[in-house]
Amino acid sequence: VSFADRLDEATRRAGHPCVVGIDPHPELLPEEFALARDPAASRLERARAVAEFACSAIDVVAGEVAAVKPQSALFELFGADGAAAWERVVQHARERGLLVIGDVKRGDIESSAAAYAEAYLGTGPSACDAITINPLLGSDSVQPFLELCRRNDRGVFVLVRTSNPDGAMFQGHGAPPLAELIAGAVHEWGRELVGACGLSSVGAVVGATRRGELARLRSLMPHAPLLLPGYGAQGGRAADVAAAFQRGGRGALVSSSRGILFAYRNPAFDGLDWRSAARAALDGMIREVRAVQAGAGGGA
Amino acid sequence: VSFADRLDEATRRAGHPCVVGIDPHPELLPEEFALARDPAASRLERARAVAEFACSAIDVVAGEVAAVKPQSALFELFGADGAAAWERVVQHARERGLLVIGDVKRGDIESSAAAYAEAYLGTGPSACDAITINPLLGSDSVQPFLELCRRNDRGVFVLVRTSNPDGAMFQGHGAPPLAELIAGAVHEWGRELVGACGLSSVGAVVGATRRGELARLRSLMPHAPLLLPGYGAQGGRAADVAAAFQRGGRGALVSSSRGILFAYRNPAFDGLDWRSAARAALDGMIREVRAVQAGAGGGA
Repeated sequence: VSFADRLDEATRRAGHPCVVGIDPHPELLPEEFALARDPAASRLERARAVAEFACSAIDVVAGEVAAVKPQSALFELFGADGAAAWERVVQHARERGLLVIGDVKRGDIESSAAAYAEAYLGTGPSACDAITINPLLGSDSVQPFLELCRRNDRGVFVLVRTSNPDGAMFQGHGAPPLAELIAGAVHEWGRELVGACGLSSVGAVVGATRRGELARLRSLMPHAPLLLPGYGAQGGRAADVAAAFQRGGRGALVSSSRGILFAYRNPAFDGLDWRSAARAALDGMIREVRAVQAGAGGGA
Repeated sequence: VSFADRLDEATRRAGHPCVVGIDPHPELLPEEFALARDPAASRLERARAVAEFACSAIDVVAGEVAAVKPQSALFELFGADGAAAWERVVQHARERGLLVIGDVKRGDIESSAAAYAEAYLGTGPSACDAITINPLLGSDSVQPFLELCRRNDRGVFVLVRTSNPDGAMFQGHGAPPLAELIAGAVHEWGRELVGACGLSSVGAVVGATRRGELARLRSLMPHAPLLLPGYGAQGGRAADVAAAFQRGGRGALVSSSRGILFAYRNPAFDGLDWRSAARAALDGMIREVRAVQAGAGGGA
């Protein structure tokens, strides 16, 4: 079954399009994982504490969401020990029935891209159901990823318009802006990978903070699932993402990381332990996004 | 001492601007490392064979070149075992007195970029003297890398115009083309990181195949060391890179990977073992590039 169809089914089962980013920033982890930031601990001990937290966070959200999105940088921080932690976390998420979207943002010339594709969309223990990729090098650099999407029923989310403050510096360059040119390419790349559900396994990353551009980008990529990071901590709000949904409220994933994982640091959840705070924050996000999704043409 | 000054000194000592890319494609390795592509071998065994080859290749070029440029994708291919191999190879290159330019092409929003910067420009065993980075996300995504360049005397080479066939698809978009806009940003980012030698620790990647654009990009980034991959196997020739040099023949690194490491597969080196073929190919490249460099205003 294609990634697009697996994603659509998992989202339908969850009843909402919210996913959780697993960004285990050592300095933000709850006290029980303080080893992760202890300068006296070995790198292996720190990486293990990060993996413990990430797996616990996955346990908190399993059964509630369709997918998790682990952030590679926070594992690579611990070198080879971090890479082992990544594999453990990816495996754990799959065992808990979650789709895994590896936030790796890789991109390189074809021969190197083929190795990245094999690593993250192949069949080994680092491999995910889908990954984020960076398209700056152009179409030939993307082909090895598409090839593995076809061969292994995997997916990619191509960076189109990112959620960070300076995202427009290059993505907004030219007329039409670069982001729209990339969006057109995403549509072309995804044509052959449209599943039975009508969505493609080639999706796009569009920041949840990009309200003004979302409708236009959605129209340029009618089949692409949109992954919208930046909800919550980065300032994205439910109303901002309304234009991302297709008729029927499908075709978009809204992602929050720090707003869920580290909700225990938010005064709104004072008195709750980190798991309860995360669950409460996720419930709130689901409620908000569902309301908007319904307005966009009905729940999932 | 800043990365710029260390690089300038190492290049002067080598007497030429050639560097060698360490791209250990398993299927191209000499027979003595065939374990790397043996489906019956464990992942650990395959990763170790790749590390053996990479360290042997480093031994072949140590004392001849200023720097090596290992390609991360070919290590990540082996997951946690590949990450351990990466650390071993980086350490080995440093012990052999080589600067290490990690070809990792990372780029992400600020909080994630900070983790990548710490991983690859920090003080741990994965860290290099410099890395390649992808600027698509804009200035705020680049700042954490610049911060570690300042704090740890590291360097970055920002992707400006890549060597692959479809490189112009997005990098050539707009007027001025995106590559020139990025080049202008590289110049700004590098202003505060100009060393005693007059070069900055913020450099740029411009494909050795981009002859027509090199002079213009050089003029937009007067202080940036240019890293020119794609020499040899990707079609770049010595005459193509002439415009990259500053007066005195400084300020550019010419990189070849497969053309050196796998020269033993080239009929021109028939009868030579892989080490001798690599040495002969490197000698030839150095001769060609020195001739052009001299024409550009004198040897290093």
